[in-house]
Amino acid sequence: MLTAEVIAIGDEMTTGARIDTNSAWLSQQLALLGIRTLFQTTVADDHAAGVQAFQIAAGRANVVVATGGLGPTRDDLTREVLADVIDQPLEFRQDVMDTIAAMFTRRSRTMPERNRAQAMFPVGSRVIPNPQGTAPGLDVSVPQPERAATRVFALPGVPAEMRQMFDATVRTRLIDEVGAGRRTIRQHVVKCFGVGESEMESRLGDMIARDRQPSVGITVSRATISLRITADGESEADALRQIEQTRDEIYRLVPEFIFGEGETFELQHAVAAGLTRRNERLLTVELGAACPLSQWMAEVPSAPQVYRGGLFAPDLPAVLGAPVRPDTLDAGLQQLADRAAAEWVLVVDRYPTIPQTDQPLPAFPVALTLWQRGGDELHQRSLELGGHPDIIQARIAKAALDFCRTLL
Amino acid sequence: MLTAEVIAIGDEMTTGARIDTNSAWLSQQLALLGIRTLFQTTVADDHAAGVQAFQIAAGRANVVVATGGLGPTRDDLTREVLADVIDQPLEFRQDVMDTIAAMFTRRSRTMPERNRAQAMFPVGSRVIPNPQGTAPGLDVSVPQPERAATRVFALPGVPAEMRQMFDATVRTRLIDEVGAGRRTIRQHVVKCFGVGESEMESRLGDMIARDRQPSVGITVSRATISLRITADGESEADALRQIEQTRDEIYRLVPEFIFGEGETFELQHAVAAGLTRRNERLLTVELGAACPLSQWMAEVPSAPQVYRGGLFAPDLPAVLGAPVRPDTLDAGLQQLADRAAAEWVLVVDRYPTIPQTDQPLPAFPVALTLWQRGGDELHQRSLELGGHPDIIQARIAKAALDFCRTLL
Repeated sequence: MLTAEVIAIGDEMTTGARIDTNSAWLSQQLALLGIRTLFQTTVADDHAAGVQAFQIAAGRANVVVATGGLGPTRDDLTREVLADVIDQPLEFRQDVMDTIAAMFTRRSRTMPERNRAQAMFPVGSRVIPNPQGTAPGLDVSVPQPERAATRVFALPGVPAEMRQMFDATVRTRLIDEVGAGRRTIRQHVVKCFGVGESEMESRLGDMIARDRQPSVGITVSRATISLRITADGESEADALRQIEQTRDEIYRLVPEFIFGEGETFELQHAVAAGLTRRNERLLTVELGAACPLSQWMAEVPSAPQVYRGGLFAPDLPAVLGAPVRPDTLDAGLQQLADRAAAEWVLVVDRYPTIPQTDQPLPAFPVALTLWQRGGDELHQRSLELGGHPDIIQARIAKAALDFCRTLL
Repeated sequence: MLTAEVIAIGDEMTTGARIDTNSAWLSQQLALLGIRTLFQTTVADDHAAGVQAFQIAAGRANVVVATGGLGPTRDDLTREVLADVIDQPLEFRQDVMDTIAAMFTRRSRTMPERNRAQAMFPVGSRVIPNPQGTAPGLDVSVPQPERAATRVFALPGVPAEMRQMFDATVRTRLIDEVGAGRRTIRQHVVKCFGVGESEMESRLGDMIARDRQPSVGITVSRATISLRITADGESEADALRQIEQTRDEIYRLVPEFIFGEGETFELQHAVAAGLTRRNERLLTVELGAACPLSQWMAEVPSAPQVYRGGLFAPDLPAVLGAPVRPDTLDAGLQQLADRAAAEWVLVVDRYPTIPQTDQPLPAFPVALTLWQRGGDELHQRSLELGGHPDIIQARIAKAALDFCRTLL
């Protein structure tokens, strides 16, 4: 199997001022081509450190993909670093300069002199076009004793440019020239909620064994569990057939926790799908110190058809404009629903204020209420949720969506 | 100057399934002790790769801090890896076992047999206590030819545990035993909005030169610019005096963009402070495909006193319950304000739907309206905002907060 190393370049990462997200994206893309990332290295804007990082990476991986350090300013050193790594001088490329100059012309801007640096390439290297920005990428081969040369691709650090250049150029070169993707690797994600990671692990049993084919990985993000099936097949049909079988097995083992499928499918999509199916509309009311439901529902593409909006307020009297007694709650919610032309009102009472601490919060009581037009009574549910301050609001919101989803 | 390497261990990072945030936090903490991080390495759960990563790191840095791989299961290899790196066998530590067993007893749970692995330590290593979890950390010295041994600290990957262990134990050992912090490094952040990074750069001129003392770094996060002053002094008083002078200089150069100070101070805190000063209250109305204002304002600690809540809806008629004409807008907003007992209503019309693309969005017209109780007329402002899909909603919300802040 081909192996890769991903390198991120920049003081803003090694000082901790910025989190690197490029490396994770690149590792995912490489995995889809059957290339395993063994190391990710982040290196400061420092010539010697950069040369060392590329030399070590080229020595231990078949493919290196780097991001950053291709801007026009003095602290952008990737061109010089790569020239040293392959022991070649930099040369000026008029064709690249013309492309960069044309970009400035199209934007009606004068090209600063220092952008000439972006047309300097190590002798023997190839250009990776950048349709969006002024920083072209570099593609060089680093000879290795007793095996094929390591292919090194250097891309800009701007995520949108980096991704487009990988999609348009690097992926093709990896397949056509490096020999990636000889086997077809496909992934499929099944999304679950309402169960802890360890219980999920024991319910799935041997399915998550590391040597299983296809493999099933568990990742948890703010209480949502993703079961990632990765199949390595001789053809696309073979890989998809393997995924289908494993997917069916997962449905057999943990049906009650599954709310959907696909990398980006979340509980709010499941709720929107349920509302669309019924041709009904939802209003949400969030009380306390957060309102993730409004944000998440607003982002669902079908929201304008099924989501009538969200109210956030410190407490329920502020929403209803009157003190709330249990016997008047139903009437109060009906009034809100009438005003918003909604068939459902979901109330989360309430999100706790998050203290300035890293300590897990003790279990906190949360009341969920779902009003349904024409329903005999309010659906209500009490929860006790605790956990890390970073995830507690999301856990409450997801519990509310899951409660709503199961009643739709 | 002492140098460090930070290592993150885990397949979930090298496969791209999870973003590593520990390394950035650790690099920041090390910088505050005067230790510069030259490299961050992420390595898969693989024995040989782990040994190689630690060997390279120990060879090129004075201090190595690693996270992850200390759990009880078979894929947690950091203990074995470190034993190989210092060429010592693992030994069972009864005192560590007793501590872990006591943790299970306190939680009224039976300790699984496999947790015994967490009491195995390389001969000659020291324990880093973990008050929150079952994974103690390791502290080992890796001898180096011709210089002092490299000190290696291995901590769990759970952020809350890792941070607490660094704070309680690692920082002290770095100062007392490794000799960090002989000089005092202090940072201070000035927050700005309403200007691009490059204009800010040219306005600040020589202040951002790399060799300036104290240094001034510019980082941009979703259109908020942080100017980070880092002073390296002989004493705390010396460092703070340097920061004070540079801070005054920044206020002289770019006063119109500064909205506050401090790492976590955001525009919503500035708005809440303005409302608190006036003893007035705000209602927000967000239209379109997002509602970041509600979320951000809800999280401000003083929100219950000054923030009456937020409405999110697809469009304004859905909020006001009637068609909106320019001549009725003022009356409609007054009605909302009366119902919510607010002196101010801020309306964002509207957040665009984000397409599934990485391409920057073309400039999009956004109308901001601020109703003020007793005001002669509505404050209104039209913007044209474009940019990357990931940041456009945040830019709109921040422009709205900045508009509100300057009128308070």
